[in-house]
Amino acid sequence: MNRQLQHDSQSLIATAHVLADAARAVTLRHFRTHDLSSDNKLADGFDPVTIADRDAEHAMRAALAEHRPDDGILGEEFGATPGTSGLTWVLDPIDGTRGYISGTPTWGVLIAVGDADGPILGVVDQPYIGERFIGGLGEAEVVGPHGTSALATLGSRPLADATLFTTFPEVGTPDDRAGFEAVTAEVKLTRYGMDCYAYALLAAGQIDLVVEAGLNSYDIQAPIAVIEAAGGIVTDWKGGPAHQGGRALAAAGVAQHEAALKILSNF
Amino acid sequence: MNRQLQHDSQSLIATAHVLADAARAVTLRHFRTHDLSSDNKLADGFDPVTIADRDAEHAMRAALAEHRPDDGILGEEFGATPGTSGLTWVLDPIDGTRGYISGTPTWGVLIAVGDADGPILGVVDQPYIGERFIGGLGEAEVVGPHGTSALATLGSRPLADATLFTTFPEVGTPDDRAGFEAVTAEVKLTRYGMDCYAYALLAAGQIDLVVEAGLNSYDIQAPIAVIEAAGGIVTDWKGGPAHQGGRALAAAGVAQHEAALKILSNF
Repeated sequence: MNRQLQHDSQSLIATAHVLADAARAVTLRHFRTHDLSSDNKLADGFDPVTIADRDAEHAMRAALAEHRPDDGILGEEFGATPGTSGLTWVLDPIDGTRGYISGTPTWGVLIAVGDADGPILGVVDQPYIGERFIGGLGEAEVVGPHGTSALATLGSRPLADATLFTTFPEVGTPDDRAGFEAVTAEVKLTRYGMDCYAYALLAAGQIDLVVEAGLNSYDIQAPIAVIEAAGGIVTDWKGGPAHQGGRALAAAGVAQHEAALKILSNF
Repeated sequence: MNRQLQHDSQSLIATAHVLADAARAVTLRHFRTHDLSSDNKLADGFDPVTIADRDAEHAMRAALAEHRPDDGILGEEFGATPGTSGLTWVLDPIDGTRGYISGTPTWGVLIAVGDADGPILGVVDQPYIGERFIGGLGEAEVVGPHGTSALATLGSRPLADATLFTTFPEVGTPDDRAGFEAVTAEVKLTRYGMDCYAYALLAAGQIDLVVEAGLNSYDIQAPIAVIEAAGGIVTDWKGGPAHQGGRALAAAGVAQHEAALKILSNF
């Protein structure tokens, strides 16, 4: 790490928290409201989840304009804003909108910053629980309702002992699904429906694998940074970089990664 | 409600909170520990989740011995203890053990009290979030990290607009699964993996339906009390009582219940 980046690290980490705080306030304002669950369209034609998504990204963009005006931004709602610093913030204001409109506590705000080679810092924030997973630039911790803990993945274990999470069976092509099901056949336990929270559980040493497909870059960059900081591995289904989106395989250790990759690379 | 029950109500509600507090302390002591996630057997041959389950039920039974010694108890771990009051406490110390060992925030402590006709008071407690749903004997509220809210279901809506939750595709016979899938084909959104938290979301006015099968009485009695107090309906798949376990259909309103029942009663 060069001196410029060492200097920047504190600014980047502080800014990531400012963004997460801003998005937390906005997303909680709309969460579990009756308008949200009944899916009414508002006067301007947008549904409440779209309002929450947009307002949260607006709040994060406003904070970046103040604290990091030279960095670029790629956001789910408002696309790409070029910068001059070489760094880009990659923002998903509400990952897991179906979970959000259903009132679950497993959607999240995803914030990453990095360059063309991928993220160097990521945050997975769950506003309702009040839980924030941060990884990269020397950080690897979760701050939650019961205090602060270091993030560390489980490490290598046999696939036969592994717990696998995914948002499937809902998403992905038939080919994606076949690949996923081939892995489920080899693991001990498969669980569904946790949205981005599954990546956080992997970083926190609770589960072994997350297999997903059809991702956008803003869905996966924050998880990559958090999981790598915790000692885990994230690639696509061929073992290449995953930060551009598409198919992702996240693993708690080399053994699970190699074993799952051997299966998934056939699909 | 007769005068005796009015008198008892305060005692029953207070006791339910005492039990939930006791189970919360025990379950959190083991939650997200490394021993738990790595599934080691302890020296006495029990795995950590079994220890947490047993210790939490022990703690609740100790509190009942002190506060309600004449009531019966039916617990997941230690079975039936007869009483003389005509009331029985029905306890599931950790509902969703697979979610618990995976670190998710959607398992729960289930506490109900009732008689042969079913529960009159229920609690669904999520210790990690610090969120408690209580319903019955005049209570219908959730106390969580952002304050206290009244519980009220969504009310009647067309099945085509409904959100359905279940623990499926993991549990149930092929027939159970076929019934569930016939309902999923008619709803707007289906989500998985929330354990007992799905019932709490229904009571909180977030979702429309929960369809499950293969339940024990201690899995469903607390949800029944909470959902009915919030204005919802819980029956088996034929429209009869669900408090003995088996197949359950929970609905936010008459319209969703009737429409889902029309489908499920064929299975």
